[in-house]
Formats: sequence, structure tokens, C-alpha cells
Amino acid sequence: MLQSYLQDAWVSPAPKANSALDVRDAVTGDLVCRVSSEGLDMEEAFDYARRVGSRTLRDLTFHQRADILEAVAVAVRERRTELYALSARAGATLTDARYDIDGGIGVVRHYAGRARSELPNDTFLLEGPAERLARGEDFLGIHINTPSRGLVLQVNAFNFPVWAPLEKLAQAILSGMPSVIKPATPTAYLTEHLVRIVAEAGVLPPGALQMIAGSVSPGLHLLREQDVLSFTGSAVTAGVLRTQPTVVAKSVRFNAEADSVNAIVLAPDVQPDSELFAAFIREVANEMTLKAGQKCTAIRRILVPHEFETTVLDAVSARLSTVTIGNPASDGVQMGAVVSLEQRDEVRRAARRIAEAGRFVHGDPIKVEVIDADPQRGAFLDTILISADPDAAAPHEVEAFGPVASVLPYRDTAHAIDLLARGQGSLVASIVSDDRSWTTTFLQEAAPWHGRLHLLDSSNMAQTTGHGSPLPALKHGGPGRAGGGSEMAGIRGVIDLMQRTALQASPDLLAALQSDSATNSAVSGGDAP
Amino acid sequence: MLQSYLQDAWVSPAPKANSALDVRDAVTGDLVCRVSSEGLDMEEAFDYARRVGSRTLRDLTFHQRADILEAVAVAVRERRTELYALSARAGATLTDARYDIDGGIGVVRHYAGRARSELPNDTFLLEGPAERLARGEDFLGIHINTPSRGLVLQVNAFNFPVWAPLEKLAQAILSGMPSVIKPATPTAYLTEHLVRIVAEAGVLPPGALQMIAGSVSPGLHLLREQDVLSFTGSAVTAGVLRTQPTVVAKSVRFNAEADSVNAIVLAPDVQPDSELFAAFIREVANEMTLKAGQKCTAIRRILVPHEFETTVLDAVSARLSTVTIGNPASDGVQMGAVVSLEQRDEVRRAARRIAEAGRFVHGDPIKVEVIDADPQRGAFLDTILISADPDAAAPHEVEAFGPVASVLPYRDTAHAIDLLARGQGSLVASIVSDDRSWTTTFLQEAAPWHGRLHLLDSSNMAQTTGHGSPLPALKHGGPGRAGGGSEMAGIRGVIDLMQRTALQASPDLLAALQSDSATNSAVSGGDAP
Repeated sequence: MLQSYLQDAWVSPAPKANSALDVRDAVTGDLVCRVSSEGLDMEEAFDYARRVGSRTLRDLTFHQRADILEAVAVAVRERRTELYALSARAGATLTDARYDIDGGIGVVRHYAGRARSELPNDTFLLEGPAERLARGEDFLGIHINTPSRGLVLQVNAFNFPVWAPLEKLAQAILSGMPSVIKPATPTAYLTEHLVRIVAEAGVLPPGALQMIAGSVSPGLHLLREQDVLSFTGSAVTAGVLRTQPTVVAKSVRFNAEADSVNAIVLAPDVQPDSELFAAFIREVANEMTLKAGQKCTAIRRILVPHEFETTVLDAVSARLSTVTIGNPASDGVQMGAVVSLEQRDEVRRAARRIAEAGRFVHGDPIKVEVIDADPQRGAFLDTILISADPDAAAPHEVEAFGPVASVLPYRDTAHAIDLLARGQGSLVASIVSDDRSWTTTFLQEAAPWHGRLHLLDSSNMAQTTGHGSPLPALKHGGPGRAGGGSEMAGIRGVIDLMQRTALQASPDLLAALQSDSATNSAVSGGDAP
Repeated sequence: MLQSYLQDAWVSPAPKANSALDVRDAVTGDLVCRVSSEGLDMEEAFDYARRVGSRTLRDLTFHQRADILEAVAVAVRERRTELYALSARAGATLTDARYDIDGGIGVVRHYAGRARSELPNDTFLLEGPAERLARGEDFLGIHINTPSRGLVLQVNAFNFPVWAPLEKLAQAILSGMPSVIKPATPTAYLTEHLVRIVAEAGVLPPGALQMIAGSVSPGLHLLREQDVLSFTGSAVTAGVLRTQPTVVAKSVRFNAEADSVNAIVLAPDVQPDSELFAAFIREVANEMTLKAGQKCTAIRRILVPHEFETTVLDAVSARLSTVTIGNPASDGVQMGAVVSLEQRDEVRRAARRIAEAGRFVHGDPIKVEVIDADPQRGAFLDTILISADPDAAAPHEVEAFGPVASVLPYRDTAHAIDLLARGQGSLVASIVSDDRSWTTTFLQEAAPWHGRLHLLDSSNMAQTTGHGSPLPALKHGGPGRAGGGSEMAGIRGVIDLMQRTALQASPDLLAALQSDSATNSAVSGGDAP
């Protein structure tokens, strides 16, 4: 039975008979743990976060908070092999595990460095310059960002059990807010082990981090005006959380990252014999197979000029044919399992719905041959490429959250722009072109529908961090179907968690505020990078 | 029957028998107009905004959009006396009318000037600097803000029928988005006349502005991913709008400014014989009586050191005693009527609820003597000051949206901080003190609960723009009960309406984007301020 971490101690739930959920190994089907939140005192936990965690964190300066992040990163890095090993039980290859675990450590370290170089050694942040609000010189306006007096409740998805809590924790700690993590049940044991590593390292102040395994529904009505509800997952669950009576009545800040039907667009100028075309094919195949396609940012729609449709279908299929699938702990396996049998069946259903508007070109939508595992007990899927009618609805609306994508031919640039928008808002799109004039025009049409645009060309194709990788320097979050949220984007992600307040004040008062700030800097001046 | 302005033409509704609402003169009770939206084709109107208005506005540069704002300001200013005259029918004195009308014109002009000096002469805005995302030099990250491909639906409150639509229109036009205004029914005839003035001036491109008088509920399901729903009014209505299925399913961006129970805090250092104390009393009385207290930012709670409670009650009462109440069109009248008899009765009920936790000190909560008007037919209220138990709930939670405030004595600074937070989030608070050290500490505790802090001291008391005045340079919007929204704050209010997208691109592509931008600037280089 998975424990929860509340008020700086590990506690076991007290589920009623048979009400706990079984979590099974994605590869073998063996029981990994059982999960329940019954009997946990969420009211006490939330109160502890606000009373102890908030108080401690908000009294630290941004640089002191950065030191904490650095220590968290060191602690997790030291024991990351434990997390790699556990990740295999969720179906992840070592590459997948590193994407999640090293990626998460990287975000925490990035935020520590950024806070030291971009934020003052103070507990608050002034946004200036001060400007005159009246004719005289004694009534000025400026904005101040102060730590909200609440907690960040993370409700996370199953696919990034380490990266997601670390990414949100980094921004929360820097903003001066304590966190309560609610991991998705299918991979809750990974987040639990992460929290155990951090807790055992003793690097966080009391109340800064708690974790609730199992359902957090009984705690939602306990949220208050100064709290933040930070959700990653499906649009349906986002809607349920967003409309919780307490969330609505108290204007609890709500951020959503929802899965979206992300696209890559091959521009008309890219010839099939070019290196950029080859990079495009690699990017598609990589996005489809990394984490077995279980990324909210993964490529689902491949928009290509209609004259290149067959060439693209052939090239992607050829590449997918070389991908070895099976037990992620075995040598030579390139793609592991999806997280559960339920998820496998869900992906197969979605792929069939998309294929109703076209045909399967590569992969078997019903069965799969695997290395070193039982294909019945493990949640394995073949890689699946679909050729679909671009003007049908399903390819733009149905998300198969696995190694599945569809190729959609477009007639001309206007058609491609229209097809992109039919995703109804996405986290990210890639545009592949060496025609700068075409790209600068196209990106302005594509941008309003996307949180991120990855513009691949011959000069950067060897350096790209990839279509699917959210980076701490950049915004993660998209409009519409993608949830309308925003995370990271550098220091913006920290400020977005704080309360921005306009100040109308005399120059002397603003000077006194700034001199407070300077005093803090002087006291621990050695902290600067 | 009030007309609506749809697809650049005035149209009349076709209400079923007796379904239109009567709007009555606040002073005489005479019928002013009838309001209904039945029979209006909102689907066509919204489509027109997106197809025609959005297309036209987003192809203009920020500086060209600023020129439009300047022309709007000139047009309204030329005919503002017509709006002053109409305002009297809503109970407004000339001072009240100017606050609404000249204030609105001022915001539009402010935004025109700010856009010319702070935004490029381009259709989009890059937010830099670009930073390296990988080891090489050819893969950079930057953010771009582009115009959302939707409309801004304004759902406004009755108390600022001119300021609110102009303030929201200014930010929408600069962001490249068309507006659909839905005025509150009790003062819809004022917004209608404003729209008529702007439309007749012919200064807006087609589809940039439409207006729906009457209920907009039948149109809410027509909103889409790229639209914005911008609401000002009660927390209850905010909750209804925020949870509309379409708003939730499509992540329609939602901004709320809700009424809040705003406070002013007299610090312990301010002595009753000081000029600052006198300024404090003036500020309180002014906030209570301007627009008869019908401002979402008005002072409702007066927090004072307990030893000064009696002195403050006496001083505020003395000042309120000099306020003349009656027909706002008559000479010598300082305070007019609230907007309707229903609103008058609602304020009286709220005042009684607050007084259950204390006693009425000044004013008659049941009747009022008025100048040049019938106190039965007009929506008049006496000014009402209540002395209340600071630890009771009602003074912090019940808002009497009229000339009503309560004095709440605090024991010490910690008690004052606690009392402030019991408002559960406010648009604004004033802090009155000459003790800089006390104020810098206090404001950091108060800031997380407020959108704006007005810090009054001896040096700026002659220059202040007042507790209740939102200014375009500063954020307007508060956490929690105040709705959790944000408007204005200078250019931030424009950017918040746009879509921010991270770009990952090669330096050459970014240079091509920036050179596009430079070309636009060169073409109309004369526009710079």
C-alpha cells in the first residue's frame, strides 16, 4: 500500500474493504502497489502547508530559495538510478526514463541558476520603472510581486511522474509557495520514490512539500483564494476541476496543460532528397516512439504537401520498421510498453477511429511482436502510421496517446494553415522549411493556435532539442483544447504564481522598499552567480 | 426600444409580448427605454466580428491601431455633453458623469500614447532577448505575441456605462481583436449612445465594434477557443459565466472584475490633529459619496486604531452631514441617486445586515431628504456610516453597493493585517501613514490580498488620484472575491489579450522576422511619438 507524505511524515491510508486501486507493472502485469487516499487528513495537510510551509518559504529570498532547488537537484541526481529502475516497471526504456528524470533535474537546476541571475536577493520583486501618476512628482506607480499566502496543489498526469512534479516544484519554491503533489495513480509509485529521495535528503524546509497518493477529490473543497490548482492531464478532467464550486467561488487560480493533437508541417520547399527531409522523418519517428508516444506534446498529425504524401508515408514506415519493441529492461529494445493494458486498449480504439477516415499504412493495430516479454500481459503496442483524409474530423480531434500518428496531405499553404487550426489549439507545432519568407508568414498564422512553434531548418536541425521537449526557458501550454495554461517561460512561470499588486506611493516610500531589498542583497552578497 | 449595433448597422429586437425589460429614470422613475435581445442574430454577429473585424484589425500595426484610438477619443470628447446629460437620468451628478465619461476618454488616449511609445510599428510583438537553447549557436528561443483570431465579448456592469466599454475597447483594438459589448440593462442607454457616437464618427474599421442590448446568454455557447470573455460585475454572475460548458470545453479566456469589500487602513502613527488625518477623512467621505458609492473599488471598511475610533466616527459623520443629496441636475446637489429602486432597496438590506454587528452612527437607513426630487420615486439613499465589531463576519463579507461604510477598530498591527485579509481578496486598499518602516512591512502582508495598494502619506496627499480610481498604467483586478482578473497595467493589458507563443528558431529566421518588423516601421516612420 503506497504511503502518502503529509506534515513531513509518511502515513498509510485506511481504505475500506477493496476500495484501494491496484497498480500493475506495465511489462509483466504483476502487482506493483495499491493506492488509496482514504483516511488521510487533507484539511490538516493543507493547513500545515499554509501555516508552516508558506511562512518558511516566503521569508526566504529568491536566492535562498534557489539554493534549496540546487540541493534538491543534487539529491535526486545522486539516487537517479533507483528511479531509472522503477521507471522500467512503467514501461519506460532507459532513454525514456532519462527524458523524465534527468529532464526534471535539469529544469530544477535551470531555475536555480535563472533565479540567481534574474531575480533580486529579496522576498519580493518590483516591476518598474516607477512612473508618475499625477502632475506632481510625489505620486508614483509601480508593481510589486509578493508570495501568495497559499499552496500549489499539483494534479499530475501519469506520463511524467518525475519531470512534472519537479518542474512545478521548482517554480512553486521560487515563488515562495509550498506544494502538495497528487500523482496520477498508474505511476504514483515513481513520484512517491522521488518524494522519498527529496525528503530523506532533508533539503526542504518543513511543510514545503507534501504528497497525496490516491484521489484528491475530497480535498478540492478545501482550496482557498490564495491557492493554485495546477493540472496536467485530459481536457475532460480539466473541465471537472475548473468548475469545482470552491474553485469558482474563491477564484482559485487554475492552470491546465491538456493533451493536444500536435502537428508537424513539412513546407513545400523541402525536397525528399534533402538532409532537412531526412531530419523531418527522424523527428516524426522519434516523437512517435519516445515514451511509446505518451507525451502531451508528441506529434499526432503530419501535414505534408500532397505531392509528397506517398514519399513521406514510405519513409516514415521504413524508419518505424526498424524500431524494436519489448521489455524496456532488455538490451536492444528501443520502445517499451504504454503504462497499462487499459491505456493500450484506449490507444487502439482511438487509432481505429482515426483510420475510419483513411487506412493503416504501417503497424498492426491489433497485435504486436515483442522482445523478452509476454505480449498479452504487457501493455505493448505496435507503431502505427495512418494515411487519412485531411478534411475529415477525426485526425484533428481524436488523440491516440501512444505510438500513433496520421499523415495528412495539404493542397496549398492556405489549406495547411486551416488544417493546423482544426486542432482547436495545441501545445506545439513544428514547421520544417528553409524558405524564410514562407516561414515568417506561416508562423504568424500558426502562432495564435499554439503555445510553442518549433521551426526546423537546415541550419539548426543538428542542434534542435526536439519537437516534444518543453524547455524551462520557453512557455509550455497552449490555447483552447490544450487547456489555455502557461508554465515555465523562464522567470515568468515564477511570477505567474505570485500576486501582482499595483503600488501608488511617494518616491521616499519606494526608496525605502528598495533599500530593504539592497540590505538583503548586502547580507548574503556572496550568493550572486 | 433600445437598438443593438450588429454588423455595422442598428437593428431592433423582436421581443415576444411583454418580455422586454423596462429601464426607468433613477431620479423620476419615468420610463427611459425598453431592452431586449430577442430576435438578434448573435451567431452572424460573432462570425462577422471574427471574419471581418479580426481580419481588418490584426493586419494593422500597433501604431495604426493607436491612431484609431486617438480618433475614438476625439469623437467621444466632441459629443461628451450628450453623455453628461443622459448620465443624470442614471442618477449621476456632473462630477460622477465626468468620472465615467472623461475618465473613459482618458484611458483611450493613454493607450494610444503608450502604444506609440512602447510597442513597435508592427502587427506582432517579440519578447526577447533570444537565448540559446542548445550548445550550438543556431537554435535560439524567443517569445512572440500575435493577435488572437477571436472576439472580445464584454459583459459589463451598470456603474460605468462609458468608462468600462472604452477601457476594454482600447486594449482590444490594440491587441488586434474586435469587440462585442453587452452593457448592463439599467444603464444600457448610455452605452448605446456611446456606440452611436463612435459609429457615427466612422473612425472604426468594419466589424471592430458591435453591441448587444439585453441578454447575451443565448450567445455564450457560440464562443470559441480564440475568444475572450471579459466580465465586470458580481461574483455570482462571474461564477455562472466561468462555468458555461462552452467556456470550459474550449478554454475560452475569462477575465473577471468582481465587486470587493475594499478597505482603508489608518496607521497608528497618524495623529487626529494632522493634515494627513484630515486627508484620510476626505478620502473616506469622497469614496462613499462619489457615484453614490457605486464603484467596485469604493471604500467599504475603515480600519482604525481602536483609540481613534470615536474621533474617526465623529469626523466622518461631520463631513457626511454637509453632503447635499437630490436631483443630480440641480444646482448645489453633491450626491445623486443610485441606479434604480431595486438597487436602493438592496443597499438598505445590506446595510442592515452589517449593522447587526454594530450600530448606525450616521445617516438614516430607511429614508432620506432630497433636493428637487421625489424621494419615493427616485432611488435616493442617505449616506450611512456604521460602527461595527471588527471580528464579526458581515462587515468583511457583505457589500452595500451604495454610500455605506463601516468603521472597524483594530487592536494592533497583526489584527489589522488579519482584518484586511478577511475581505477574501480585494481590488484595492489604502494605507495611510507617514511611518515608512511600518508601511513597507505592512504592505508586504497586505499585497497578496490586493490588486492595488494606494499608499497615502503627507508628501503625496495633495497629488493622489484617489483610492477608487483605476489608472491605465496600473493593474485593475484583485484575487479571490475580486474575481482573480487583471486589466490594464499599461501594455500588459494588451499583451494579455494576445497569444504568447514560444519560438524555437535559427538566428537567420529571427533576423528575417525582425526585418519584417523594421520594414513596417520604415513605411510609416512618421508615427513615432
